[in-house]
Amino acid sequence: MITLTTDFGTSDGYVAAMKGVMLSIHPEARLVDVTHEIEPQDVMEAAFVLRTTVPYFPAETVHLVVVDPGVGTDRRAVAVRSGDHWFVGPDNGVFPLVLDDQEPDAIYELDEPDAWRAETPSTTFHGRDIFAPVAAHLNAGRSPETIGSPAENLQPLRWAMPITDSHSVQGYVAHVDRFGNCITNIRRKTLLRTGIDPDEENPNEEKPNAHAAPDVALSDLPALKAYVGNAVIRDLDRTYGAVAEGDPLLLFGSSGFLEVAVNAGSAAELLNIRKGDSIKVVFQKEAPAG
Amino acid sequence: MITLTTDFGTSDGYVAAMKGVMLSIHPEARLVDVTHEIEPQDVMEAAFVLRTTVPYFPAETVHLVVVDPGVGTDRRAVAVRSGDHWFVGPDNGVFPLVLDDQEPDAIYELDEPDAWRAETPSTTFHGRDIFAPVAAHLNAGRSPETIGSPAENLQPLRWAMPITDSHSVQGYVAHVDRFGNCITNIRRKTLLRTGIDPDEENPNEEKPNAHAAPDVALSDLPALKAYVGNAVIRDLDRTYGAVAEGDPLLLFGSSGFLEVAVNAGSAAELLNIRKGDSIKVVFQKEAPAG
Amino acid sequence: MITLTTDFGTSDGYVAAMKGVMLSIHPEARLVDVTHEIEPQDVMEAAFVLRTTVPYFPAETVHLVVVDPGVGTDRRAVAVRSGDHWFVGPDNGVFPLVLDDQEPDAIYELDEPDAWRAETPSTTFHGRDIFAPVAAHLNAGRSPETIGSPAENLQPLRWAMPITDSHSVQGYVAHVDRFGNCITNIRRKTLLRTGIDPDEENPNEEKPNAHAAPDVALSDLPALKAYVGNAVIRDLDRTYGAVAEGDPLLLFGSSGFLEVAVNAGSAAELLNIRKGDSIKVVFQKEAPAG
Repeated sequence: MITLTTDFGTSDGYVAAMKGVMLSIHPEARLVDVTHEIEPQDVMEAAFVLRTTVPYFPAETVHLVVVDPGVGTDRRAVAVRSGDHWFVGPDNGVFPLVLDDQEPDAIYELDEPDAWRAETPSTTFHGRDIFAPVAAHLNAGRSPETIGSPAENLQPLRWAMPITDSHSVQGYVAHVDRFGNCITNIRRKTLLRTGIDPDEENPNEEKPNAHAAPDVALSDLPALKAYVGNAVIRDLDRTYGAVAEGDPLLLFGSSGFLEVAVNAGSAAELLNIRKGDSIKVVFQKEAPAG
Repeated sequence: MITLTTDFGTSDGYVAAMKGVMLSIHPEARLVDVTHEIEPQDVMEAAFVLRTTVPYFPAETVHLVVVDPGVGTDRRAVAVRSGDHWFVGPDNGVFPLVLDDQEPDAIYELDEPDAWRAETPSTTFHGRDIFAPVAAHLNAGRSPETIGSPAENLQPLRWAMPITDSHSVQGYVAHVDRFGNCITNIRRKTLLRTGIDPDEENPNEEKPNAHAAPDVALSDLPALKAYVGNAVIRDLDRTYGAVAEGDPLLLFGSSGFLEVAVNAGSAAELLNIRKGDSIKVVFQKEAPAG
Repeated sequence: MITLTTDFGTSDGYVAAMKGVMLSIHPEARLVDVTHEIEPQDVMEAAFVLRTTVPYFPAETVHLVVVDPGVGTDRRAVAVRSGDHWFVGPDNGVFPLVLDDQEPDAIYELDEPDAWRAETPSTTFHGRDIFAPVAAHLNAGRSPETIGSPAENLQPLRWAMPITDSHSVQGYVAHVDRFGNCITNIRRKTLLRTGIDPDEENPNEEKPNAHAAPDVALSDLPALKAYVGNAVIRDLDRTYGAVAEGDPLLLFGSSGFLEVAVNAGSAAELLNIRKGDSIKVVFQKEAPAG
């Protein structure tokens, strides 16, 4: 299986050209579009969207990511092995973001023209001439040693982490989805710890798949206020229907991050929130005795 | 084969997550997108679009429909058998609309966590955690008894029927397509009967696939005027090219409903028509003798 | 393999209906969307986009093209053989454009109702009722003699050629892509010849895949100025990153045509260029001695 994540849109022939190249090399490949609607050259957006889908694909899936502002310059082309998945694309920071800073198991620089579509690739469309053929070869089971050379150290890029103190968490809106739900960079565990036991700092807590420990729950949290856009929200709920239609709420969405939503409406529109806006969650804790 | 109809759009990772889940369960599944551009939470739009495609899919196709304003509330999750097709999604009225009120052959409530992606599904994304896995299991041939319990009575929802009298039909614009064609809820048979023999009422006439009897034809109709948007249209034709470019016409479109169109133009734009607008067709009958 | 190029958009059920028809006839068909976002009835746009993808598909691919302003009139329906590919759609000029005036190897008029979905096809949706079934039959290996009758002479339509004189080339912007890159109708060879040796006229030069001879290169060209939109551009480079971010440049894009681009920006927006605008490239040649 090969997934595709690009900023090519679907009105030009770029995506189809890549698919034709892949199916010429490996006619049995299953191709699944993640999205081609990434804002042009928005590497972080590509990483955010792909990251929400990777866990649902089977072993040996190849994820092809072509959001490539540096095409034709000397940025490297890479294939990255992590767990039982492959990632193929330009080395511009997108893969450390997708992998959430987990160390890859292997990195190959794609310097083997024999695995490309043509010895002299286009200077503007490595998606078609380098990345698609390499993804197809890997998917067909070709050994990674024959598509490139072992390499070290991906170009680093990191998600901004939320800032916490004894009674609040400050983060930002990392993504606004089609429904106007505003997905923040605040994980469940961060919010729970800040609300319940902020002193028990754990440097490992932001690792991928770090969800709340089973012995604490949202219902144990003290009352809170969240300041975001033009609203103050006090409801932290499990699903949209927990508040009246048109009312805002906070919830942990399907990707495990805190979301700002409006039941049967668009939070982005109604609360005037844009991608990149900050959100501050303040817990109403009792003043310490004394 | 599994078709997908959602309001998720294609810029987020939601659709790809569902596809990854399905292909993990049933790697041989053929996935066909109907559309992901349904207006958020517009259950009737989803039913309208899916209904125009169902007849063209082969036996044993599974139609996955996730337009789910009630996700996380106590609305049921169902799989519906009708003819030789399966329909999977929330029980919010979408399936009676798709089936045009035909009684389903079987209904199952999806209460078997063993057929889900996880015992504790996300409260906001049943498409990924319940509906997609169930669709994949059914497509893989798993017995419906192992994915849920037999149930009765889908949540009812019905299309508004046109109102007819001895010389006119009043309906509404149910859908505006990409070309600006305005598709009404008036079937061929309704118009023919009203124009030719309005007294021969037949309560079964609005059943699906009820097309005109072969012995009456559009050419037998008396002259008519249709009032819709800012126009009065007198032409009922067989195809767009029957009128000059830029001229409006009525025709029975590929789905069997009366459409308002403009040759080489957008009827919605030029005649100022919106979804939901009414249309009245009046026949110019001679006054009865006497 | 079957590719699909239409102006149907993806919010209605038209594309899915065609796919259902094809997969009912030939369940093993591989379907690849080129695009469904062609501007309604823009035959040249369809040809331009498809032309950039055809070379990347394997032998025996069937290209289904349904941009069909004349549906229901007496325009012919055809299947065209060129090289080892099939092309299926209305005979409205789109195929000569895609084939760049190369003579097809065979043309069949689709007059065999037995290869259609129904003996009486819809008058408004031949994509579903004639073209999709024929494409599926051809892809399944059915003999072309059983889907239509041999025919001659496609409806002719041609790309406008650039106009050259001893020191300049005048062309137009044939396509603006999602990034705002403006792709002109000027081929590499035309520019090289005008810049270096305009007297060596060769009437065959505009044949498909006519790229620069290996013994002349962009670096041999004299200085040039390109007038397009609100800009004068002097940089002819190999890739976007050769100029500073936000600066315009000319380059030969992945399809072999001269493009106007802006590094990390939209040329269409920043230079105020629209599809159809003219571009003039003037070489700064020394005045001939004497």
